[in-house]
Amino acid sequence: MSQCIATYRIHDDHADFRKKAESIAVGMTVGSWTELPQAKRESLKKHLGEVYAVEIHESQDGQPGGRYADIRIAYPDINFSRDIPALLVTVFGKISMDGRIKLMSLNLSDDFLTGFPGPKFGIEGVRQQLGVFDRPLLMSIFKSVIGLNADELREQFIRQARGGVDLIKDDEILFENELTPIATRVKLCMQAAAETELETGKKLLYAANLTGRTSGLREQALRAIDAGANALLFNVLSYGYDVLQELSSDPEISVPIAAHPALAGALYPSPHYGIAAPVLLGQLMRLAGADLVLFPSPYGSVTMPRDENLAIRDELHKADMGVKRSMPVPSAGIHPGLVPKIIRDFGLDVVVNAGGGIHGHPMGTEAGGRAFVQAIQAAIDRTPLTDYAAAHPELKAALELWGGEA
Amino acid sequence: MSQCIATYRIHDDHADFRKKAESIAVGMTVGSWTELPQAKRESLKKHLGEVYAVEIHESQDGQPGGRYADIRIAYPDINFSRDIPALLVTVFGKISMDGRIKLMSLNLSDDFLTGFPGPKFGIEGVRQQLGVFDRPLLMSIFKSVIGLNADELREQFIRQARGGVDLIKDDEILFENELTPIATRVKLCMQAAAETELETGKKLLYAANLTGRTSGLREQALRAIDAGANALLFNVLSYGYDVLQELSSDPEISVPIAAHPALAGALYPSPHYGIAAPVLLGQLMRLAGADLVLFPSPYGSVTMPRDENLAIRDELHKADMGVKRSMPVPSAGIHPGLVPKIIRDFGLDVVVNAGGGIHGHPMGTEAGGRAFVQAIQAAIDRTPLTDYAAAHPELKAALELWGGEA
Repeated sequence: MSQCIATYRIHDDHADFRKKAESIAVGMTVGSWTELPQAKRESLKKHLGEVYAVEIHESQDGQPGGRYADIRIAYPDINFSRDIPALLVTVFGKISMDGRIKLMSLNLSDDFLTGFPGPKFGIEGVRQQLGVFDRPLLMSIFKSVIGLNADELREQFIRQARGGVDLIKDDEILFENELTPIATRVKLCMQAAAETELETGKKLLYAANLTGRTSGLREQALRAIDAGANALLFNVLSYGYDVLQELSSDPEISVPIAAHPALAGALYPSPHYGIAAPVLLGQLMRLAGADLVLFPSPYGSVTMPRDENLAIRDELHKADMGVKRSMPVPSAGIHPGLVPKIIRDFGLDVVVNAGGGIHGHPMGTEAGGRAFVQAIQAAIDRTPLTDYAAAHPELKAALELWGGEA
Repeated sequence: MSQCIATYRIHDDHADFRKKAESIAVGMTVGSWTELPQAKRESLKKHLGEVYAVEIHESQDGQPGGRYADIRIAYPDINFSRDIPALLVTVFGKISMDGRIKLMSLNLSDDFLTGFPGPKFGIEGVRQQLGVFDRPLLMSIFKSVIGLNADELREQFIRQARGGVDLIKDDEILFENELTPIATRVKLCMQAAAETELETGKKLLYAANLTGRTSGLREQALRAIDAGANALLFNVLSYGYDVLQELSSDPEISVPIAAHPALAGALYPSPHYGIAAPVLLGQLMRLAGADLVLFPSPYGSVTMPRDENLAIRDELHKADMGVKRSMPVPSAGIHPGLVPKIIRDFGLDVVVNAGGGIHGHPMGTEAGGRAFVQAIQAAIDRTPLTDYAAAHPELKAALELWGGEA
């Protein structure tokens, strides 16, 4: 019998965790069990949830709040349809409201996974778009774009492109507006990208932010693609994973999609409630078809613990999901000095993504991009950044401002 | 200048909360300010967020974790489009990941609210559908329906209907399945409802659960309505508020929609993270067009503090939102003895909603419904339940099992 297994962490100083596990297994599936007649049990057995494991951790120091259990429940696939809303309602719908309970992980069955085409491009596809196969990619973020007119936007785009980045993404808070509506800004940015490519010889993906009403997203994406867009940015959690899946699996939406983690902090950071980051920003984003996934890095100002970051990486990179792999994009607080650490943590299949670390460079945005290009080159050559910086003033200035390798 | 105001609660033992507030106001809007030239400031002023208030609460006992501030930031409406995804990304996108921060409330401008038609029926519309104007409505929940065949489902429906309930809702974990696909179960339930109405003289709304892929929801709703559905149930948070709004504002979806709170527990209960229940399950559900909104009651097993419940009620009931009012449906752990308390807390514009409190009645499901009908009658007559129970054996049995008024 094919099943998906959910692991919950439940904090409770007094609960009978085994009883609790049984009540979840029954309550979230057939509703009642022990009181059923034998014949009914026979017919319902294939729908009944199953307690897979109960691992109780007693409070180390006897302090209240320290006792918890990791409880694993198997849900028969026959109970729910092959979509993320059905999965989430099944494994964490009602039960999310019942005490201090956090959804820690999901083991999805091969059968369930058949419902998901996954990323259209994935790591290899994005690399092919760019013609870059042997190093981390470099992404730059538009900054302070609200209120910019088309000329100002173009100017900022060119400064970023000249720095040598591979991808430029919209600010996620840039919605449809009179000054720079999506088709306008895509046209002018792609035009600028083409001009810059003549100078630098580098291809560039520009991820335009899809916004507005759900029913308009597809048409907006097609308009952006018509205007030349070669990537899209999407605030997945404000719409729902299934909306991302609709977009990513649409045959006409023929460009990579980058998933932004806006709102994710409402769900993952509490130890007691919510959905763990590797599920929220790893597994489900990839399942829904994100080619690139942004999440808070463990290095910067908006942080996430390193082990959670690496668990997100594993969900995006691992081979056994039956869908293409997604590019991890650890973000926030990234400066050139962190590049060796990023590669150590994520390998080469990672996007080095910077906003302030590029625009805030003392020699300007263009130099900011170059400092990252230099740091990446040094790191893959296994040359210490400080050595490489001796002949590269942009990297040198960056290291002086933000520090180097730890 | 029209603005929407967000209130955050930020826990931090050491932060300079005024500086933090400034950094949110600037960082979530124009990106930078103090370093801008004067001319640029002039042109960007209308986009700049504004610190409305900073209310600091020092830790009472000096304990770590006790210090927090309530910070109010005004976001110019000009920055974002008139949809809930844009609102949420603007006020709680990136900032949700920046430390212990919870979104407590939203004051939405009249201008922003013009984008939202709100509930199609609302409290008055739902009452008109039922012809019931002077008392709380009574809803009953299908129980243990996974694995039931059409005959068993019909039988359970009839038992609930004969008990005298006004609404019957699907179990939220019932997805499309071979035994009881939506059109089949709507047909058989509405047929059963018509038959029961001949006996009881009571109209009945049956809320069929909309499930599956986002792009199929509209068609599924229309199929259900074609089959006779006179209400729908929707797991809003697994799809996103905007998907509810698409459904509720669709002219062809001509029946009330009940919003289920599945997954809400991942977002509201933490004191440090997430989105407060009155926003999550009150304001935004109503704005997105839910005619009825289910949420955990303060009375039962799956609980929510009473003040949060009453704040949800206020968001659903209050007059100044420019859209129809929504019916609050406090749920979980409801039994007949609680009816006077529910009316005291919510007034008459409330749905008394029971699952176990109906199906678990010692005299059976039908009697379970009757016990509630009796309790509601007693409460609006201001007759003590125990007095009324003397001549009403179903209520008497319920009070004996579950207890009476506090």
